Amino acid sequence: MELAQATAMLARTPKTLETLLTGLPPEWVHRNDGPGTWSAYEILGHLLHGEATNWLPRARMILEHGADRPFEPFDRLAMLTWERGPVDALLTRFTEARRASLDELSSHDLSASDLDRRGRHPEFGEVTLGQMLATWVVHDLTHLAQVGEVLARRYRDDVGPWRAYLPALDRVAEAE
Amino acid sequence: MELAQATAMLARTPKTLETLLTGLPPEWVHRNDGPGTWSAYEILGHLLHGEATNWLPRARMILEHGADRPFEPFDRLAMLTWERGPVDALLTRFTEARRASLDELSSHDLSASDLDRRGRHPEFGEVTLGQMLATWVVHDLTHLAQVGEVLARRYRDDVGPWRAYLPALDRVAEAE
Repeated sequence: MELAQATAMLARTPKTLETLLTGLPPEWVHRNDGPGTWSAYEILGHLLHGEATNWLPRARMILEHGADRPFEPFDRLAMLTWERGPVDALLTRFTEARRASLDELSSHDLSASDLDRRGRHPEFGEVTLGQMLATWVVHDLTHLAQVGEVLARRYRDDVGPWRAYLPALDRVAEAE
Repeated sequence: MELAQATAMLARTPKTLETLLTGLPPEWVHRNDGPGTWSAYEILGHLLHGEATNWLPRARMILEHGADRPFEPFDRLAMLTWERGPVDALLTRFTEARRASLDELSSHDLSASDLDRRGRHPEFGEVTLGQMLATWVVHDLTHLAQVGEVLARRYRDDVGPWRAYLPALDRVAEAE
């Protein structure tokens, strides 16, 4: 993993989601696939929550304490209890939070060898800063994919016989 | 399916893909998951090819000939034989082609009842214009999801133990 490429990808995500979701009608942005599945709005909330409580806090922990102190567990479901507001406001908050995260990351002026610095995951044990940053990128991209699919399934019945060619319409939605 | 909502979603796709893919390094934009799977570049090519040969040609066939004449089969793999150019050029072509498609669709001034007009799919038999337009939207969104996942899998090994929490990294890539 090359740090500059990873952070450049992370910097794209808010704009990509903004393009896809700004002003989208509630029937689209709040639809989910049943109990235990997430709407596009909730996925965006999950990403926003990660900015505040997951990625940078863990990077700080690695840089300050190494593997001596474990990360705080990340509450993947926190956003489900939030009061629902307009999606555009959530997009703005995510854009700002991501920018702040990347600014702070950049301020550490990390070298390639810093990516080998170790932290302690509460479940996995020792992990590296590089693994965590790669995970951040993957997490963005797979949640973007999840947004695309939950939006697509709004038209599951509308496509008629084409459903046979669109396996994603019948994929069990996962809240990853 | 509400026509204005469907076309508004179709109009978002080029910009969403542009945000995600413009200037992306070749190691990312051309990676695939092995034989029979598509890179982000190839998925974009598949979408571009559909503009020229699939969606509007079929809409025209429905509006001009109803169910009397079957659609031409769509060559899903045409883009795999194209000469590879810069992704930014392909994004520009897709943006222009999509705009032309939506302009032409808009010129037909379709009413809600037009969505019930029938055409003949070479395999499914009778289908409606509305089903075809819903399929177009779903096709965009599921291919956007596919792009997100093929990009994500570049870091399959880099994430270390987090792979256990990221099932999309081990999902068999499908060329849908």
